[in-house]
Amino acid sequence: MWLQREITLEPRPRGFHLVTGEVEQALPELSQLDVGLCHLFIRHTSASLSLNENASPDVRRDFETWFDAAVPEDFRGWTHTLEGPDDMPAHVKASLLGPSLSLPIARGRLALGTWQGIYLCEHRDRGGARALLATLNGQSRRP
Amino acid sequence: MWLQREITLEPRPRGFHLVTGEVEQALPELSQLDVGLCHLFIRHTSASLSLNENASPDVRRDFETWFDAAVPEDFRGWTHTLEGPDDMPAHVKASLLGPSLSLPIARGRLALGTWQGIYLCEHRDRGGARALLATLNGQSRRP
Amino acid sequence: MWLQREITLEPRPRGFHLVTGEVEQALPELSQLDVGLCHLFIRHTSASLSLNENASPDVRRDFETWFDAAVPEDFRGWTHTLEGPDDMPAHVKASLLGPSLSLPIARGRLALGTWQGIYLCEHRDRGGARALLATLNGQSRRP
Repeated sequence: MWLQREITLEPRPRGFHLVTGEVEQALPELSQLDVGLCHLFIRHTSASLSLNENASPDVRRDFETWFDAAVPEDFRGWTHTLEGPDDMPAHVKASLLGPSLSLPIARGRLALGTWQGIYLCEHRDRGGARALLATLNGQSRRP
Repeated sequence: MWLQREITLEPRPRGFHLVTGEVEQALPELSQLDVGLCHLFIRHTSASLSLNENASPDVRRDFETWFDAAVPEDFRGWTHTLEGPDDMPAHVKASLLGPSLSLPIARGRLALGTWQGIYLCEHRDRGGARALLATLNGQSRRP
Repeated sequence: MWLQREITLEPRPRGFHLVTGEVEQALPELSQLDVGLCHLFIRHTSASLSLNENASPDVRRDFETWFDAAVPEDFRGWTHTLEGPDDMPAHVKASLLGPSLSLPIARGRLALGTWQGIYLCEHRDRGGARALLATLNGQSRRP
């Protein structure tokens, strides 16, 4: 079984945002798969998807602090600056974290670890709504 | 054909560890696939999987040195410090390297390059045993 | 439907290179798939694949500048230096960016966002030709 669906994530401020519930709710067909993979793909070059700690808002804030320090807006090497100071750092952060996640499906659910949640990593100050393309592939559950 | 199996990797100290053999031995069904993909997923937020040089222990040691310098325990921006000084750096390293690998299968084997090996990247001082979930999908070999 | 094909990318200098057209032309079977995934895998440990902005050469140059600054050749922690000053930084950059891309296929095409292009990230001064292994999996289009 294959299924593909676009998911629109509402605009969020720069930072790391937990979107596990939003993604799962958009994919009720997960429950039909006994084993498979859920591929999530963000169709942008200044935002990314990652998987990390799902409990403490502290962790997500510290992610932003570290990434802003590691890929600073005032890095002297930037030449692509026409689209604003947050643009080029956003591109680099997007590639460091990556545009997609492949998540295992087991017995009708995403087989995440206890502490794993899906992060939308928004690297622009005003990135707007973000388009995900979800592709599910797997074996149906026997009724 | 779909196959899913949990693989437990024994506890290892902080650092980068070559686990190619251990993973392949846990997946004898690889030999039945003519073409396919092997998805390896680590169900933790303070360890990751990567693919890199499989020959020199020097390389793996230098990985640890660089990552410890790039994501230092004494970074002044950390606020999530309750779980120890190695916790927040572990989360950031985990996202930089990522929780999964998708590896091509060709003629019954992982189609890695000559120098490519699977790294377990252990970012905690005492991370304990690590759970991988392996998902194989592909076309069976003709007998 | 499964299809697997090796694609050889011609030698390129150190830097970030747009190869979307080259990859698509090597995979005419994309047009036969209604929905699926295209897995691209680089069989090397000193080059990587990424997805980022496909319009401005500035962006790709700034990628190189930032990565060279973040993983410098003169980092004092390197011990694996026998293969030249660009070798160990190349390994670290390769793992930061990753060896593979999984791209959704929709209606016979890679379903990339408007601004997304495939980067070959060449981290060696003289990396030579690079071998990709492409694995397509999906549902055929109805004729």
